[in-house]
Amino acid sequence: MAHHAVTFDVSANPVTVQTGTLLTEAAQKAGVEVTQPCGGQGRCGRCLVRVTEGNIRRRSTLRLSAEDVAEGFALACQAVVEGDATVSVPPQEKVERRLSTDRTVAQVTVPLGYNYLTDQTVRRVTLDVSAPTMDNQTDDWSRLQNALSRTLTQDGETKGAGLAPGSSLLSLQVSLPLLRRIGRTLRDGEWQVTATLDLADRRDGRPSARLIDLQPGQVTEETPLWGVAIDIGTTTVTVWLVDLISGEVRAQAAEYNGQISRGEDVISRIIYASKGHGDDEMRDLVVESINKLIQRASKRAKVDQADIVKATIAGNSTMMHLLLGIPAESIRLMPFVTAVNSIPVFRAAELGLDLHPEATVDCLPGVASYVGADISAGVLSAGVDDSDQTSLFLDIGTNGETVLGSKEWLVSCACSAGPAFEGAGVLYGMRATRGAIEEVWINGQTYEPNYRVIGEVKAKGFCGSGLISLLAELFLNGILDKAGNFNHLLPTKRIRRGEHGLEYVVVWADDSDRGEDLVITHVDVDNLLRAKAAIYAGFTVMADSVGFPLEAVEQVLIGGAFGKYINIEKAVEIGLLPDMPWDRFYFLGNTSVLGAYRALLVQADRDRIQAIAGRMTYIELSADNSFYDSFTSALFLPHTDLRKFPSVVKELEQIERQRDPAIADQGQGG
Amino acid sequence: MAHHAVTFDVSANPVTVQTGTLLTEAAQKAGVEVTQPCGGQGRCGRCLVRVTEGNIRRRSTLRLSAEDVAEGFALACQAVVEGDATVSVPPQEKVERRLSTDRTVAQVTVPLGYNYLTDQTVRRVTLDVSAPTMDNQTDDWSRLQNALSRTLTQDGETKGAGLAPGSSLLSLQVSLPLLRRIGRTLRDGEWQVTATLDLADRRDGRPSARLIDLQPGQVTEETPLWGVAIDIGTTTVTVWLVDLISGEVRAQAAEYNGQISRGEDVISRIIYASKGHGDDEMRDLVVESINKLIQRASKRAKVDQADIVKATIAGNSTMMHLLLGIPAESIRLMPFVTAVNSIPVFRAAELGLDLHPEATVDCLPGVASYVGADISAGVLSAGVDDSDQTSLFLDIGTNGETVLGSKEWLVSCACSAGPAFEGAGVLYGMRATRGAIEEVWINGQTYEPNYRVIGEVKAKGFCGSGLISLLAELFLNGILDKAGNFNHLLPTKRIRRGEHGLEYVVVWADDSDRGEDLVITHVDVDNLLRAKAAIYAGFTVMADSVGFPLEAVEQVLIGGAFGKYINIEKAVEIGLLPDMPWDRFYFLGNTSVLGAYRALLVQADRDRIQAIAGRMTYIELSADNSFYDSFTSALFLPHTDLRKFPSVVKELEQIERQRDPAIADQGQGG
Repeated sequence: MAHHAVTFDVSANPVTVQTGTLLTEAAQKAGVEVTQPCGGQGRCGRCLVRVTEGNIRRRSTLRLSAEDVAEGFALACQAVVEGDATVSVPPQEKVERRLSTDRTVAQVTVPLGYNYLTDQTVRRVTLDVSAPTMDNQTDDWSRLQNALSRTLTQDGETKGAGLAPGSSLLSLQVSLPLLRRIGRTLRDGEWQVTATLDLADRRDGRPSARLIDLQPGQVTEETPLWGVAIDIGTTTVTVWLVDLISGEVRAQAAEYNGQISRGEDVISRIIYASKGHGDDEMRDLVVESINKLIQRASKRAKVDQADIVKATIAGNSTMMHLLLGIPAESIRLMPFVTAVNSIPVFRAAELGLDLHPEATVDCLPGVASYVGADISAGVLSAGVDDSDQTSLFLDIGTNGETVLGSKEWLVSCACSAGPAFEGAGVLYGMRATRGAIEEVWINGQTYEPNYRVIGEVKAKGFCGSGLISLLAELFLNGILDKAGNFNHLLPTKRIRRGEHGLEYVVVWADDSDRGEDLVITHVDVDNLLRAKAAIYAGFTVMADSVGFPLEAVEQVLIGGAFGKYINIEKAVEIGLLPDMPWDRFYFLGNTSVLGAYRALLVQADRDRIQAIAGRMTYIELSADNSFYDSFTSALFLPHTDLRKFPSVVKELEQIERQRDPAIADQGQGG
Repeated sequence: MAHHAVTFDVSANPVTVQTGTLLTEAAQKAGVEVTQPCGGQGRCGRCLVRVTEGNIRRRSTLRLSAEDVAEGFALACQAVVEGDATVSVPPQEKVERRLSTDRTVAQVTVPLGYNYLTDQTVRRVTLDVSAPTMDNQTDDWSRLQNALSRTLTQDGETKGAGLAPGSSLLSLQVSLPLLRRIGRTLRDGEWQVTATLDLADRRDGRPSARLIDLQPGQVTEETPLWGVAIDIGTTTVTVWLVDLISGEVRAQAAEYNGQISRGEDVISRIIYASKGHGDDEMRDLVVESINKLIQRASKRAKVDQADIVKATIAGNSTMMHLLLGIPAESIRLMPFVTAVNSIPVFRAAELGLDLHPEATVDCLPGVASYVGADISAGVLSAGVDDSDQTSLFLDIGTNGETVLGSKEWLVSCACSAGPAFEGAGVLYGMRATRGAIEEVWINGQTYEPNYRVIGEVKAKGFCGSGLISLLAELFLNGILDKAGNFNHLLPTKRIRRGEHGLEYVVVWADDSDRGEDLVITHVDVDNLLRAKAAIYAGFTVMADSVGFPLEAVEQVLIGGAFGKYINIEKAVEIGLLPDMPWDRFYFLGNTSVLGAYRALLVQADRDRIQAIAGRMTYIELSADNSFYDSFTSALFLPHTDLRKFPSVVKELEQIERQRDPAIADQGQGG
């Protein structure tokens, strides 16, 4: 057999290998590390290399576009050496970014062009108040108001907050506790004070300010002004601590919603809250969760919580009602209406939030009982409402809400998915934090798994993206059949009967942070199937009901807190997402908190959320008989109707062929 | 001597008397009761009769006008029988009304033309809210708002509360506790509810309503809607319970301000409040006083306190600060400014008032540290601000506030009078309630007193008008000299040395409700002199300072809670009021609570109080060196400068003459 010299750009010395050697083997010989999470099956695409000179044969071009091939890209595990070659091994992160089906969740960026002076409703101004004299005995409060009107209007462009020069403040609202402090503060500051105001209440362009705080003296320009964007998910509560002047997120914190111990879904929470003092208990639990996160984020950013002067809250309608202590029973009962969708602004002290007691708390508006503020905020942050393109927006959380539409129209629906994709309701499920397995690949011959852990530490459990990945791998490799049953006949110790029935061991105790085997059980699989079936049935029935063909959707925008990397292919393989070209999918992360963050900063975005809530039509799925049928059909992997998943069918065939390498070589040789 | 027949219209049989007999003697003989509180000195005018036929000689025409004489009126104690005569004895109340110097305090009447639908900001409306269906899943809160906008605008004239037909409600404010109840109430009422609203917050004619209450079902037209007008005096707190629909006052209650135990004047209260938890204590004390009165008035009118939905509060600036818990120190210290004059509207629950927790509490606006909301409200109810005539308005209370002006201009000042005229700071002083002596006459020969008690029961003490009357009588009869010293050489047991120095016994223990002698002491006299001197000095210095001659004042309007009958003559005799024609004086009672009552009912009046507070110029007397001089000069009875009190000089001369009846007969014979 002929020998060929293969040179890797990351290694000084070329290696000599026989014809037919795989590039992964050559790399190993050269001491070059090439990642192969899928065990060299050519499925994960992580062993992407670029052949800059010479010749190789690609056994498979799965994951490679025509352009990729033209540029010399190849999968090392599927590249057969047939002559001398020079190979470039890109850094792993570049590979990740290049792989079209692995979408890193959008990074949080300050809204484009954010300007505290024009966008923010909370304003801090230093005021030089005229001191009283025997000739001018005007009261303190009038002096303060006069100084404020003067300061706010003296420079309409830069200090106006929408106040035209010369226009005056309509009124200055103040709470009694704050009013009690005015006189002392004015004198402590020797008539120079810094006022923190909320100018959100604008009527006919003349703002009515609310005084949030008054401090003696002036503060430096650099002193930040703090806000928090809060998302109350049924399963997960998220808090972002935001510098309102720069617009930057300074700390993020997320944790399970304390209410989870009283029921996993909104229905059981409502029932719990409606009994005895359940409502108080529910309120206390979520307030405690939020306060814990505010404290954690504040500590991390070294911020005094009492300096946080504004909060926006997104969350589904049930979460919002429970937070406010408003009875939520009507959400659960026919005809399923909320007590309130557009919630008035309250002060932090009224809600028990550990912020400045006068902090503005703006609970964002929802649409309906099962399409809450998390969705109106999500639609904003996903940009569905101002796009020419028709988008399908999916918020994959405990409640699977879906929005379909564009700048012209918006419809929405919801279904109960359960908390599986947030890592709850699954034995070793966890949130997407350090120690969570976020991606899994299983070797089709050995059934041995390969996985990636967030933070590159020992694994503790699986986050949502890890579970999607795991479920897909178990299915594709025949460990699970299409009905979700484990094949206990396969030659591997990893499939075994455990406490909860059949299970698959992903991590042996030795490698686990918990010191015990990390498994996925039959019950877990059932929960995941039900979750994905509900979501899939939701958007398909909704699209049908408005007569919009799903394949005409131009972009699929996905929100949810699964993890940082979500593999579209795998989500399609399990039948969670529709089978469409991968470039139409965008993973946006927690769109709800993102929307709350935008509303926290930019008043125009806050107004847009209100407009979204106003114009979005809600479709009640429970009124649609076809929903249950669709749900049942979707309980399979990927679906009972395989015609809906042509790419998965093709892939299954390809795997079948790969089981016999001879067939594979013939079929894919090029 | 000749005998004459005298016939009294109230007696069947004529009596025969000798020439020279007084009509009072003839009346006694006929068994006809003729009141003679002054002991027949011809000073009190209470023995007024009308000689319809025949001849009598008038020894004195004091208290009689030329018209009175022409019509046959005479004072029975000064009328000498000189021929047959027929005499009509008018009922006592007619006499009281006729006597030009005794002015009954103005009766409370519903503001002319009061119309709940156009004047009142609190509105109760029954709403038929559309019930939700599976086809219309709008939230409860939006349904309620829609029904409200529809109902309020459907008939702009009668239901609009200033809402033009077709115009919409700007916003509906609601508290969190109330928002929590909306859903339940709508369902309990089967989608018919009665909303109580406050529409006071009007901007550009479009009201922004605040929801005060929501009840299931509808209420009958007759169900009253309750409000309270409150006056917090330094010494006395007054509460009026008002039917907001008819405008009628249903119950009145007044009591000493509980803070009185912590200091009699505002300065000592401010000092007390500024130490330790004094502010909380002061707040608690006055809130307790108010709540006690609200409870008392509610009980009397059989009203549930929770049905009282609106309160207006008048009071001086210190009282207002202490009620709200706002530090009042700056009121006491140069340059004497308040923390706040125009106070935002709060809810009853915020202030701790035992009303509906959401009740609107409107603390009326004040002018300055020592001219508070009691004066702006008083100016309104006295009508100073819309009169063509120049008025001198005096609020005779613990703080002697004075306003001078007309619809063109208004100036004000204040001085510390002390609580003597409210019956506090005087040994047997009391409020003008049952058992209070409200008028005293002393016989110039015997030094024996005659008095009238409120409620015609045994006497308990003296109210303000009683003290003024007593002081004048003591002075006119030489029991007190012009410096206010008792003449212990007079032949009466009633002047004696007691625990507090010299004193005069008005009521012996047997006749007193207390079972002890009711006296006025030297200390009491000093306090009364200081009070009257402060008030007199106040308005004279103010008039001087604006260059307006006091004698050009067209009406003197007097507010204060002395009692029901105030004798102008006596108030002039002691030098409390300026010596002017009696027909220029008007006693208006508690003008502060009257103003609060007007503001409670009529929004235009509330707006007028704001305008008054805005345009009234405050003159700081402490900045005027002449005040102390004026005060010192006024510490005498009636004044050091007798030229200022010509009518008193004339009266003293007349009394001197009466001591010798021969002179009197010659001088006054007709």
